[in-house]
Amino acid sequence: MACPVARSLDVIGEWWSLLIVRDAILGVRRFEDFKATGIADNILSARLKKLVEEGIFERRLSEGRSDRYEYVLTEKGSGLALVIAALRSWGQKWTQGGDRSLRLVHRACGHEVSVVAYCEECGRRAARDEVAPERIGAPAGPGSHQFVD
Amino acid sequence: MACPVARSLDVIGEWWSLLIVRDAILGVRRFEDFKATGIADNILSARLKKLVEEGIFERRLSEGRSDRYEYVLTEKGSGLALVIAALRSWGQKWTQGGDRSLRLVHRACGHEVSVVAYCEECGRRAARDEVAPERIGAPAGPGSHQFVD
Repeated sequence: MACPVARSLDVIGEWWSLLIVRDAILGVRRFEDFKATGIADNILSARLKKLVEEGIFERRLSEGRSDRYEYVLTEKGSGLALVIAALRSWGQKWTQGGDRSLRLVHRACGHEVSVVAYCEECGRRAARDEVAPERIGAPAGPGSHQFVD
Repeated sequence: MACPVARSLDVIGEWWSLLIVRDAILGVRRFEDFKATGIADNILSARLKKLVEEGIFERRLSEGRSDRYEYVLTEKGSGLALVIAALRSWGQKWTQGGDRSLRLVHRACGHEVSVVAYCEECGRRAARDEVAPERIGAPAGPGSHQFVD
């Protein structure tokens, strides 16, 4: 797939996958503990298998045990924290309900961080109205899709 | 649902939904044009219907036409741009492939913005190792789930 958004969804876009990663970021490692999310055994098993194959989790024996496995996030898996935090931000603003979730806290001050657009070039946060969407890598020539506007 | 991440996924977590929103952010408004993503008619129709019900899109008559509808992102829908940008960042870093996608550009300088963790309190970007995940709103008492660590 040519679009990195689509490729990301191909890895973690199935229902439950990001909630499993959310719990893992909070420290969950064992199959039994992931079940607390409310996911059925067979689905959890299938999701974890795929997430291991995709390199999001590493499956390994629990320390000091030869009969129990745990699922540990890789660096690739931990990298999803910002995606989850962005979903949380959006959900907080636009949906109704409680706030039992994962938050990311700034160690220096203890406050929750926000997920924002940031310009490395200017070295500062970019406000919403300072940001414009742009289509990149559009195929040229006949048959290519013409966007409106 | 008590978790805003789960609620967000309940709204836009079905396969294709975020890709439809991605195209909409780039200016696509017509059913025929959303099809360029490669989605089947019946799925596209079902997804758009749900996204309208959820207030992500507004369905309205095209200007000057009484026979054609278009799907316009609401403010709630446009708010997903950061989620999509976070998925794009992760996909660029961790998956292989081209880069035909949506990027968010800083109007002031023309460079692509990054999606980062930002501390409003300190007024600056928080680096990855400065951010700690924290579980919030855990139910207390018997039957509550004990996280590892």
